[in-house]
Amino acid sequence: MSPVSIYPVPGLPEISRGAALARLIVDGLTRLRLSLEAGDVVVVTQKIVSKAEGRVRSLSEVQPSARAMEIGHRIGFDPRHVEVILGESVRVVREAPHVLITETRHGFVCANAGVDRSNTGGQDLVVLLPEDPDESAGRLRDGLKEISGAMVGVVISDSFGRPWREGQVNVAIGAAGVVALRDYRGDLDPAGYQLQGTELGVVDELASASELVMGKLDRVPAALIRGARVAGDGTVRSLLRNPATDLFR
Amino acid sequence: MSPVSIYPVPGLPEISRGAALARLIVDGLTRLRLSLEAGDVVVVTQKIVSKAEGRVRSLSEVQPSARAMEIGHRIGFDPRHVEVILGESVRVVREAPHVLITETRHGFVCANAGVDRSNTGGQDLVVLLPEDPDESAGRLRDGLKEISGAMVGVVISDSFGRPWREGQVNVAIGAAGVVALRDYRGDLDPAGYQLQGTELGVVDELASASELVMGKLDRVPAALIRGARVAGDGTVRSLLRNPATDLFR
Repeated sequence: MSPVSIYPVPGLPEISRGAALARLIVDGLTRLRLSLEAGDVVVVTQKIVSKAEGRVRSLSEVQPSARAMEIGHRIGFDPRHVEVILGESVRVVREAPHVLITETRHGFVCANAGVDRSNTGGQDLVVLLPEDPDESAGRLRDGLKEISGAMVGVVISDSFGRPWREGQVNVAIGAAGVVALRDYRGDLDPAGYQLQGTELGVVDELASASELVMGKLDRVPAALIRGARVAGDGTVRSLLRNPATDLFR
Repeated sequence: MSPVSIYPVPGLPEISRGAALARLIVDGLTRLRLSLEAGDVVVVTQKIVSKAEGRVRSLSEVQPSARAMEIGHRIGFDPRHVEVILGESVRVVREAPHVLITETRHGFVCANAGVDRSNTGGQDLVVLLPEDPDESAGRLRDGLKEISGAMVGVVISDSFGRPWREGQVNVAIGAAGVVALRDYRGDLDPAGYQLQGTELGVVDELASASELVMGKLDRVPAALIRGARVAGDGTVRSLLRNPATDLFR
């Protein structure tokens, strides 16, 4: 049984709009004397994908609405930041001092609609989630295929908090060419008992695994996962829970 | 930059009460021609730890209470299974057809208080979480040290569902010798913006990463993670969220 290996992709520069991520990743891997192979998974942070796509706003150009000002003053947030967050959200899920959890247009429930002020490239800048992260992953996959010839999987990761537990973990916000859920329902265990409710969010586990080589300040916004045998055609969109069966709306 | 490598530990037998897990893991690694090194992390599933600790109940010996019968009939669960779940719980968090989410004595919020009917070794058996999973991890760590001489980290994993997303992911329920949370708060990003709320649940990411080599039916209940640089003295107990600051109670 061969191991799963996770390599940090070194040497990526600060990313700005229009950056050729696929080329930068292949070049970074070349520095490690690695070339992409079929079945590899490339995990990239949301931050570099968003920056390459120009999903950056300058707060100095944001005019907060009355609602954004009200929320901002109540929870201790810059109202311009709140304005951008609300623009990305379909509803506020929870609000508390220094905490604003919303549901994004994509259907993610996360802090600040994923609109981030750290590691943005400037004090005044915020970075928004990609418009359609599964699509972004697909484009990066195509780009990597074009340069390397290899059909790889791509996962776009972001750090989300969770209820009940301290600490964020990396989850997938976009994917292409990988399994999203691995479904064991209907299978029988060795004693003949049917496995119930056993679907595994593999795409999130890939994102979490990649964080082990990324760190937060190390400027390693990409990782290569080799040997995971997770090729497929899942999307992150598909694993968002149906509101009708969601007990924690 | 060297990779993080994750090896499935092969050849573990069906585990029963009193099994010498440390010895079985070291023997499994020997089959891979691997020996434990300082800084390695051994991840084991809750199931084998619980079985080795005798945390198994036969439903035929369980007498359901009136409350367990009521809940069981309402949600379509075996009332004896509900009885065991309630015995492990301090409160019911959510109840729905075929779903019973409780808070365990340990403070975990999860389906069925972690009391599992699949892969138990028999149709009539249920497996409970360890009494004190951090302690269990510490004992396994001591056992591995005794046999191998290496100070490794140990993580005990279980598959938990999450709100808002389909699919369970492996999280840590017990740990010894590893960082639980990696704290970036107070650090500055390259633009001088202070990283806020950036604590990463590294111990959960180790658990998730290990699942990539485990699978659910493959009978690979242990994995070795090498190269993650996560030595520390965290516990899973420490990352359970303070109820006072929990917005999703």
